[in-house]
Amino acid sequence: MEFKRIGFIGTGVMGAAMVARLCRDGYDVTLFNRTREKAEVTACVTGARCVDSIAEAVKEADAVITIVGYPADVEQVMMGDGGVFDCARPGTIVIDMTTSSPSLAAKLFEQGKDKSLQLLDAPVSGGDVGAREGTLSIMVGGEREVFDRVLPIFSVLGENVVYMGSAGCGQHTKAANQIAVAGATAAMTEAIVYAEKTGLDPATMLRAIGAGAAGSWQISNMAPRVLSGDHDPGFFIKHFIKDMRIIESEMVDRETQLPMLETVLRLYERMAEKGYEDKGTQALIRLYKDADIATNNKN
Amino acid sequence: MEFKRIGFIGTGVMGAAMVARLCRDGYDVTLFNRTREKAEVTACVTGARCVDSIAEAVKEADAVITIVGYPADVEQVMMGDGGVFDCARPGTIVIDMTTSSPSLAAKLFEQGKDKSLQLLDAPVSGGDVGAREGTLSIMVGGEREVFDRVLPIFSVLGENVVYMGSAGCGQHTKAANQIAVAGATAAMTEAIVYAEKTGLDPATMLRAIGAGAAGSWQISNMAPRVLSGDHDPGFFIKHFIKDMRIIESEMVDRETQLPMLETVLRLYERMAEKGYEDKGTQALIRLYKDADIATNNKN
Repeated sequence: MEFKRIGFIGTGVMGAAMVARLCRDGYDVTLFNRTREKAEVTACVTGARCVDSIAEAVKEADAVITIVGYPADVEQVMMGDGGVFDCARPGTIVIDMTTSSPSLAAKLFEQGKDKSLQLLDAPVSGGDVGAREGTLSIMVGGEREVFDRVLPIFSVLGENVVYMGSAGCGQHTKAANQIAVAGATAAMTEAIVYAEKTGLDPATMLRAIGAGAAGSWQISNMAPRVLSGDHDPGFFIKHFIKDMRIIESEMVDRETQLPMLETVLRLYERMAEKGYEDKGTQALIRLYKDADIATNNKN
Repeated sequence: MEFKRIGFIGTGVMGAAMVARLCRDGYDVTLFNRTREKAEVTACVTGARCVDSIAEAVKEADAVITIVGYPADVEQVMMGDGGVFDCARPGTIVIDMTTSSPSLAAKLFEQGKDKSLQLLDAPVSGGDVGAREGTLSIMVGGEREVFDRVLPIFSVLGENVVYMGSAGCGQHTKAANQIAVAGATAAMTEAIVYAEKTGLDPATMLRAIGAGAAGSWQISNMAPRVLSGDHDPGFFIKHFIKDMRIIESEMVDRETQLPMLETVLRLYERMAEKGYEDKGTQALIRLYKDADIATNNKN
């Protein structure tokens, strides 16, 4: 095992599940989390070791994995005082699995190189279930040779592990993923709204349309949660907004509009204004039920 | 076979394939099409009989099937002089498989009843391939008992045949289907645009995202056609616009906005303005490549 000792930073829902898989597979994982209690719970459950600083987590690591909240958190964890760039040994491979900004990934890659660190951006999709079961899709940017060396680690965490190109390309691929998720989620939501407004039974409607050209993972997997009124977060609205704003910003830089994506982002921003930012993305239907959309139209 | 003699009106791509299946299954089909040449070709290939008027097609039929272009065509075929309502025998079951307006379907149901005709609205999804292979999804509105009687006919044409409720409910379900198709098509298109703008290989990107929460029939089946530059119509843009305008109109009546659907409709209307209305729906990417979207933003 070339990379037996892993420094792991971030034990949210995704991080904790990934740590569990790595420990079960024989990796020696040292954990740091800003909120220590979360790291302690994870350590307790998985057998990982919990420490008080990034320095302790990374100083003896062969590879470092980070999965935190926002790009600003990634930047702080990597480049802040006492961060990964200050404390990791030269030659360490540093894998950021946060869904973050492609530009930041490219910048970290370059600045990491100056410290002899080898960075990969490797965001995932597949949610908490995928993380627990090791069925994540992992989209990786950085140097091919570095990717090949840590592929055994990725294989513990995911099934569909794809090398996408230079630094930032993993993040760009995740951005494309989120564009597709945005469209499919709005599609599922508006189809249900239409069904309810016109007196159809939504479950029967979904059964009638789900097998054909209208079909999607969202219709098969998230629509049942919408119909049962389950709005708990598999994926937080606040994180989805972050992702869509990254996409918007990347496209502004390229003078390109994505009208569908922008429409969906505006809808979720209104969800956040209404205090729904800690709900799951499938809660979008509340905006239609609250009749805000119709009301706004009349103003 | 309770309904051996079928009067069939409309031999477009879908109609012709359906006639072929019915003839192969032993039905006695009499065809009428506004453009006679098309009906002749279909008759020649399938063994159906081709006639010169709606009257001849329906007067001895046990069941009548119509699949024409637009709601106005449906209305003309049904209620025009010498149309189905004038010429069909009392007791005939009349199945409109055109994707048309739910309100029109409800109106035809009522007016048909006055002539002792039993109407079903039964639009389909699955495209020309589904029609040829008999794998269509068929969404049916009307009386349940009438539905049950003609189920053997539907079973020849489709696999996923679902009774949805009273007259118009078949059309409402197809409308919900088209909402989901609109979102998934825009999602697939904008994900590819993003990939191309950021230097990803779009095919590799689609492989990385297609298996997870971003996955859809459109990504699996239509994206490869987009990448190969195949913009030929499986489903015409002009018909998609018709469908989305029906949806918009139904929602206006219910004071409901579907912002994603409206955004996609506006994009396709711009495609039509540019002369792309006879292309397939997957040609949407041209609007982004022509840079109209970016240009409009700057104005």
